[in-house]
Parts: sequence; structure tokens; C-alpha cells
Amino acid sequence: MSGGGRPAYSPVTEGVLSDLADILGTYGVSADREKRAAYSLDETLPRFEGEYRADAVCFPESAEQVSRVMKYANDNRIPVTPRGAGTGLSGGAIPLYGGIVLSMERMNGILEIDAANRTLTAEPGVVTSEITKLARERGLLYAGDPCSGDISFIGGNVAENAGGNKVIKYGATGAHVLGLEVVLPDGRMVELGGKRRKDVTGYDLIHLIVGSEGTLAVVTKVTLNLLPLPKRVTDLLVPMPTIESAMNLVSLITTRGGVIPASIEFMDRRSIQNVEEYTGMCIPHSDAGTQLIIQLDGMDRGQLWNDVERVGDICAGGGALEVFVAEDRNARDRVWRIRRLVAEEEWTGSMPLLSKEDIVVPMGGISAFFELLPAISQKHQATYNAYGHIGDGNIHITLFPESADAVEEDTAKSADSLRRDLYAAVRELGGTLSGEHGVGLKKKYTDIFLSRAHIDLIKSVKAAFDPNDILNPGKIVM
Amino acid sequence: MSGGGRPAYSPVTEGVLSDLADILGTYGVSADREKRAAYSLDETLPRFEGEYRADAVCFPESAEQVSRVMKYANDNRIPVTPRGAGTGLSGGAIPLYGGIVLSMERMNGILEIDAANRTLTAEPGVVTSEITKLARERGLLYAGDPCSGDISFIGGNVAENAGGNKVIKYGATGAHVLGLEVVLPDGRMVELGGKRRKDVTGYDLIHLIVGSEGTLAVVTKVTLNLLPLPKRVTDLLVPMPTIESAMNLVSLITTRGGVIPASIEFMDRRSIQNVEEYTGMCIPHSDAGTQLIIQLDGMDRGQLWNDVERVGDICAGGGALEVFVAEDRNARDRVWRIRRLVAEEEWTGSMPLLSKEDIVVPMGGISAFFELLPAISQKHQATYNAYGHIGDGNIHITLFPESADAVEEDTAKSADSLRRDLYAAVRELGGTLSGEHGVGLKKKYTDIFLSRAHIDLIKSVKAAFDPNDILNPGKIVM
Repeated sequence: MSGGGRPAYSPVTEGVLSDLADILGTYGVSADREKRAAYSLDETLPRFEGEYRADAVCFPESAEQVSRVMKYANDNRIPVTPRGAGTGLSGGAIPLYGGIVLSMERMNGILEIDAANRTLTAEPGVVTSEITKLARERGLLYAGDPCSGDISFIGGNVAENAGGNKVIKYGATGAHVLGLEVVLPDGRMVELGGKRRKDVTGYDLIHLIVGSEGTLAVVTKVTLNLLPLPKRVTDLLVPMPTIESAMNLVSLITTRGGVIPASIEFMDRRSIQNVEEYTGMCIPHSDAGTQLIIQLDGMDRGQLWNDVERVGDICAGGGALEVFVAEDRNARDRVWRIRRLVAEEEWTGSMPLLSKEDIVVPMGGISAFFELLPAISQKHQATYNAYGHIGDGNIHITLFPESADAVEEDTAKSADSLRRDLYAAVRELGGTLSGEHGVGLKKKYTDIFLSRAHIDLIKSVKAAFDPNDILNPGKIVM
Repeated sequence: MSGGGRPAYSPVTEGVLSDLADILGTYGVSADREKRAAYSLDETLPRFEGEYRADAVCFPESAEQVSRVMKYANDNRIPVTPRGAGTGLSGGAIPLYGGIVLSMERMNGILEIDAANRTLTAEPGVVTSEITKLARERGLLYAGDPCSGDISFIGGNVAENAGGNKVIKYGATGAHVLGLEVVLPDGRMVELGGKRRKDVTGYDLIHLIVGSEGTLAVVTKVTLNLLPLPKRVTDLLVPMPTIESAMNLVSLITTRGGVIPASIEFMDRRSIQNVEEYTGMCIPHSDAGTQLIIQLDGMDRGQLWNDVERVGDICAGGGALEVFVAEDRNARDRVWRIRRLVAEEEWTGSMPLLSKEDIVVPMGGISAFFELLPAISQKHQATYNAYGHIGDGNIHITLFPESADAVEEDTAKSADSLRRDLYAAVRELGGTLSGEHGVGLKKKYTDIFLSRAHIDLIKSVKAAFDPNDILNPGKIVM
């Protein structure tokens, strides 16, 4: 299964399976056909069912087992693809060259919550929402929980530097990582950071590994920073006539308003109307150009209410069609349910997708981007809906063919030329390919955004960690 | 001047100087003896006057000139040490193998302040406080300004990942860097990041380069994130009977109090009494075990006052001897003047120093550390004062001989054995060598804190960027 220019990988023979069973026990390795198929997919579209296939799935239960598997794989030139919950949206967990899929699902213990240090230490296979829940029970906030927190693993969040709704105020996953225990491709274990809150002793390898999509090291333990838990949260649902007027608001809130909200999310008209069709719900102002969800949090009611009033006034003065303030749990859930349904509707909708995008544009260029977007999609007989994290410029765009029978055979080809036009516009505005999902299988587009010297540097760093190119080979850059 | 095991470096001949003048102009390169001496020092103690000496000092005025100098130096195997304002405290700017010192002082323009994106873009030779001032004039906060901001350059802050008083709330320099333009050791230029607020397209090379002490790349442009400027700031000066009671407060403020203050600084009794002696000032409760400075900031007075009251109540309940609240500019200046004088006194004091430390200990281990410290210093006939950023566990300790004539000849030797005992204690508590000053010439101690595999990884990453080892060679690890 080795690709062009790559070192020749060794096949996973019966002998290899037997050696792996010696390390992991009989139940720690599987070459079962269905298991191999299931562990070779993630949530990436278009689906790659059958295209790539692991030769063996390994289920280590300790860092020591991970270390032994990696040493064995490195000595024998067998590719290894680490895998979290398989909820990734860029193919990070897909084994492009077969070999071993290293599922971290059995390393799923929360090892410690340390109140004196405000830290939590977990194995990579812990479902992220468990971390959030446990922290909350102790009056603390894990602010890195992404939108997929109920199903994704913390190890996968670290590998992808997962984002979510709260990046504008709290940062992405990496902003909360204080320490990592990792296994290098040759099996050596390294402790990076820990519970300390400042560290310039040597290079910052932690944040190099965060977001490296499992290509540099296997994370076997994560120490996370926790914050004081905001006691009060209020959400504002704000229908706005246009994206442009919405963007003006975002800018005014953070400058004149002096507030960085916990979230500023948006859903465009088509996203809202899709949800109405899909659910039969009736959403007020569903014909507005865009709807904003603004979340404010704070420690006491008076304090938070000042923020709500200030932001509400800015919205009203900035052309909001309404400012719906959701204070209690039920009202807040209704607001966020719409946002969740936007993403859900896409999965269950009958329309074939051309692509799902995760682009980022600097805040000052978002209005310009949305002026260009209709022409780009029309040129390729496509329509779209857009939603996401407008407070930090990370926009999810889902592109569909204008009519189901317009494309068919050459969906991949038309998606490719559409993407290239889209990315050229994003690039022109100082933006980039991926904000939170990762590059993964979008690697053929990285050279639109990264210079030759930049790509060479990525390859050199990869080779410094993994000279035999056995750890998740073929990802990020061509 | 080449060291053992290093590639042989080429000497800086008349011909080399002439080639450099071709790139930089006659006034862009100097081999003047005094200039070479002055540009071979920083603020590190013990001073290395005369020990290391640049062969030439270069003053590039553009990234393109930096690129040409680096290509030339790489092709000809001449070491290059980038230099900011020379205010470093770990020898990062000292040219261990001679060669070229690359002073960034002429690349000192603030290129843009972009209100729509809340970003500021500057060349590396800008004095950091100019950035803070310009941002403030636009109602924005540059939260990365370290204690040395009035004299250090932003490029040096980036190279060292400088900290300061506000790391507990806002993070160190790296937390504010959105984009870098860098020149690689072979002269290639790379743009990393930009004005966008999220980016997982490729590895996070920005934060690998931040804090790499000028060993991986020369930074030629920095794009910084700005925040809304807090409109109100209040400082609390809180004398506490013991370090232990002070640490309990710090923990309670962030957990029960639910506040992350902008700063929590401390000064121990000896630090305070040194300032009294040095200045003739009379500081209330100067016999208290420690004094805390707690800075709270916010957008409106009512909101901030709630925080002040909550924190004040926690202090009073936690054994504070007094809670002095400084609201107006004059009172606040008086509080911070004491903190500044603690550092200043050391420089002008007549006592010879054994060492100045920049260690970090996780919050939960600080009380234990201060229980061990007296015995360690006594064992080595040393005394100490301690102060710094206790809110994030980064403690500056200045160690003196017990009497001036006790040591003398073997100051370096006794400092070394003292340090090794100190570091063993720090290591045991999960701490590290440096929180914000950098490793630099303390490299012989890194193996106390970093494993062999970790050090090898640092060396591999260095080699990936700089295979000829010409960029600031000999720093960070042995």
C-alpha cells in the first residue's frame, strides 16, 4: 500500500499479528474484517468507505503498550494511525497506507482532578464532555470542550487542536493544555510540561504536537488547565438584516462594548430555513440575512446584566431586528438547539454534498468574503449554507449542487474546481484552509495557503520526529 | 572559536566584512572593537564581559537584508546571533561562537494598527511599551508587555516568550502572537499565521519559534492580538504573615472567589526590607512574611468593585494583616514602585550575587518549596530574597553569600552546587528551570529537568531548521 516516494512499508502478516498479540494480549489486537473496516473511517465527507483499510486494529491499555507497539512498528516499518473516537471531519484517523490503527478507546481514565493546581489529567480516550462535567462538579470550567464534546475524545481534540463555540474568549483546545505525555514514533516516551503554568525550558513542543493530527507523536496523557466556572450565563439570539451588519456588531461589541463574549456564532438564512424545513419548527425572523447567537458569562448577575445591557444596546443600535435574551436554562437550550440542528440537518438531509468547509478569514475581511461567495458558488452551479464561529472568523460552509441531477458523475471534479476558486478568495483575504477540523485529506490544497519553504519546513519537522514516516503517513502536506 | 563537536565555523575576515557591507551598506556593518564588545553582552549575571566577542555587528533595515545576511552566513558557515535590546537575563543574545551579531534595532517600525481585526503589526526592533501605548490610545490592550517593556524589544520578547506581571490572566508573549514573518537560517523567508484568529493548516510553527531563543529563525515581523482595554484597574497591597497563608489566598481567590486577577505578585520579607534600606522608604508591615500585590481590572466601576470586595473579603478571612486598596493612579503607582524597586535594588546593591533564579513550581507545591528553601540556602552559606509572579508559580530568587568574604574565589563553584540542590527540589515538586527568562547559558542544567529523549528531540528540531547550526549556536541544550 506504499505511496510514491515513500519508504516501502512492510505488510501486516500473521507473524506481525502474533507479535502484536504478545504486546497487547489476544483481545488487544484484531484483524477482523468488519472491525478493520469500521476503524478505517471517520466522519469526513465524502466518505472513503472501502478506499483505505487498516490491516490490524490495536487497543493499547497503557502508555507502555503504546511504546512497545510503536517501537515494533518503527523497527518493522509498519504505518500506525492513532485514532480517537473517529468523529474527525478531515480524515485524520483514516489509515492511508493501511498498517495498524491504534485505537485509544481503552485508555479512558480521568487520572486526577487537582483543585490546588486547577488541573485535570486524563488519558486520551476520555470523552471530552466527561471532563467538562467532572470539572463543573468541582466548580471549575474546562473551556476547551468543542461542539463534538459529547462524542469526541480529548486525545482527538488535542491531535486536531479542536475549536468549538468558545474559542473567541477562551481559545481552542491547545490553549488549555499544560502538559502532555507522548510516545514518539520510535517508542520513546517523553513528558512535556506538567501542572506548572509557565515554562520556557526548551522549545514549546507541546503546542507543536497539539494540532499535528497524530503525525508527530501519540498522546498518552493530557494535563489540562481549568478555570473558575462562570456562575451565570446568558445567550442572546439576534436576527440581523445582513452579514455585513452582523459583522459590524461583532466588531463594536469587542471594541466599543469592551466585551469578549464567550461565543459569537452565526447561521445564515438558508441554514435557518433548512432547520425549519427539517424540523417543522417555526423560527422567528427566519427570513433575516443572518442570526447571531451571543453568549455572555460572568460571576454574578448584576455584573453579567451590565454586559447584557451594553451588548443589547449595541445590537439594537446596529440594526438588530430583535434581541431575544435567553436567561433560563430552557430558553438557552432552545437557542442552541437551532444551532445544533443546522449541523445535524446536513447529515440527514437528502441533498448530496459537494464539500464541507472550515475556512477562516480575518474578521475585517468577512463581509468582503460573503460578497464574493454567491458569485463563486453560482459559477459552479452550487448553492450553500453558512454558519459557525463568526466571532473568530471560522466559517463552516456546506456546498450543494444547484440541482441533484446537475452533477452526478463528476461530483469530485466539480467540487475540486469550486474549492480552488473558494480558497483563492479566502487566501486573498488573508485567510486559511482550516480553522478547527484539520487538514488531513485536504492536503492537496495546502500549497494554495502555504509557501514552498513553509511546506518544506513542515516536512523537516515531521522527519525530525519520525524519520521512517510510519506515524499517520500521508497527512497534512503532499 | 568553534566548540567541541560543532561544525567548524569560518572566521570573519576582511573579505567577509566587505561582503556584508555589500548587503547592508557601509553603515550597516561594524567591526569596531567597542561596538563588538557592547553588542556581545546582555543583562545576564554573572557578566561575561570579554568572554565572548562578536566579530562583526550587522544592522539590517529590512527582512530582505536579513535574508541575504543569513544566506551568506549559512553558505559560509558563520554563526549569527540575533539581538534585540540586550535586556535578556539568560544570555540569549550573547554570541558564544563569535561571528555575526544581528542587531534588529533599525527594524523598528510599527507597521499597522488594524482596529477591525484588533491587531498590531510591528518590526522586531520596536520597544514593547510603544506598542502598549499606541494600543491604549486606540482603546485597546496589548496584554503581553513584560516588566521590561520600557526597554526591551518586541522581537526579544517573542524570542524568549517573555512573561511579566499579567501572565496569570492574559498569558505570556506567545499567547498574543497571531502571525510571524521569519527568515530561516538558510535565508528563506516564511510567513506564519497572520491576522486570522484560528488556524490549524499545518503545524503550529509560530509557537515553536516563540521562546526558541533565536535558535530556529530570525523574526522580522510580528502580528499581535489586542484586547478591549479594561477601563478600570484597582490594586490591592496585602501583607500576609507567611508564604503559606499567602498561597492559600491565591488558591481561594481563583476558586471560591471565581476571579482570575490580572496580576498576583509577591515580595518576601527580605525583599521588602532591602527596599526600605535601599530607599529609606517606610513600608507598612515590612516585617510581614510576604506582601501580595493583587491587580483586578474590569470594564465598569460597579463590576470591578464587586470583584474587589469579594477578593478583599477572602484576604481578610485568610489572615491578611491589612488590605490596602489602591484605586487612583498615585496610590497604584506607589504600590508598584515597591515591586519595581525590589528588582532595581539588586542591581545597584553592593552585595555580590551567587545567582538569580527564574524557577517555576506548580501552585500546589509553592508552600512546600518555601519550606525547603531556607535549608538549601543555609547548607551553602547563602541567603536569599524571593519575589515575582506567585499567581502563576514563577518565582525569582536572588541568592547571596551569607557574608561577603565567606566565598570569593570559588563563587562560581559554590553557586553551581547551590543551584543543583535548588533545582533538585524544584524538579521534585514538578517545577522547571525557567518560567520567562529563557535557558540560554543555563543549558548545563537542562538535563536535570528534561529527559534524554526530550533533549534529543530539541536537537532534532533544531537540526531540522538549522542543519549547519549557524543560528545562535550553543544555546538551550548542551
